[in-house]
Amino acid sequence: MGRLQVIAEPGRQEVFMTRDFDAPRELVFKAYTDPQAIPQWWGRLNSTTTVDKMEVREGGRWRFVERGADGVEYGFHGVYHAIVPPERIVQTFEFEGEPGHVLLETATFEEQDGRTKLTAQSVYQSVEDRDGMVRAGMEAGANESMDRLAELLATRR
Amino acid sequence: MGRLQVIAEPGRQEVFMTRDFDAPRELVFKAYTDPQAIPQWWGRLNSTTTVDKMEVREGGRWRFVERGADGVEYGFHGVYHAIVPPERIVQTFEFEGEPGHVLLETATFEEQDGRTKLTAQSVYQSVEDRDGMVRAGMEAGANESMDRLAELLATRR
Repeated sequence: MGRLQVIAEPGRQEVFMTRDFDAPRELVFKAYTDPQAIPQWWGRLNSTTTVDKMEVREGGRWRFVERGADGVEYGFHGVYHAIVPPERIVQTFEFEGEPGHVLLETATFEEQDGRTKLTAQSVYQSVEDRDGMVRAGMEAGANESMDRLAELLATRR
Repeated sequence: MGRLQVIAEPGRQEVFMTRDFDAPRELVFKAYTDPQAIPQWWGRLNSTTTVDKMEVREGGRWRFVERGADGVEYGFHGVYHAIVPPERIVQTFEFEGEPGHVLLETATFEEQDGRTKLTAQSVYQSVEDRDGMVRAGMEAGANESMDRLAELLATRR
């Protein structure tokens, strides 16, 4: 099972994350677009994620609420720009704790020999926004999400 | 009447455009969000723009078709992430001639003494995408749009 790779070049306003999964991309894409699957992998390991809204189509809105181990709730929302099964999802992302700061996220799913390489690019409105998210522990959080996703996929093969 | 200022720093994946209008921001915001106004200012001077779709709300989709003087049609579409009257619009943007290349656009309207400063930021998925758009004549096109918008606003004061 691959590990998450995170690339955040100094002075740039983007982050690339790549991860290899031992599953065909239809399954990985489904885990990304199935409201029932989201609570099983999205967010930190010790948190609970609830799907408030998830309209998986162009112009559809999504909103997830993550409840941390400390009971504090964090809302996240955005809209889907493009849903291209099983290849690509383009969406916006806003953390409601920092309202007005928006990201453009592009998730690309590539399959080879039954395995799937996920590339997730986040483009920020500024380098400061990106650096703030990196400092806030984005990599650790993404690592936990991706590990949980890999475990979920292992049960679905 | 102010001129358009375009800032595209080398190696960055964003463009900032600012323009000053002799009109209160409610009017400028309305020209941005009124489907009837779009054909009057959006696009090149010698082209004709048709609003195919314009759902001005979070998650709403928009699609404009610009018909050039040569009769060739170009489609553009995206979704609205946020509509905050009369302050801010955050939306995605995709030129259908380059499918799969998406921008995140943030338009901010600030008023002072009855005048409005518009700041439009475009964040691209890559420096190459941005440089391609700059080379394709983005500045000249934006200049024409902004001049037309200023003229339209002058008739509405």
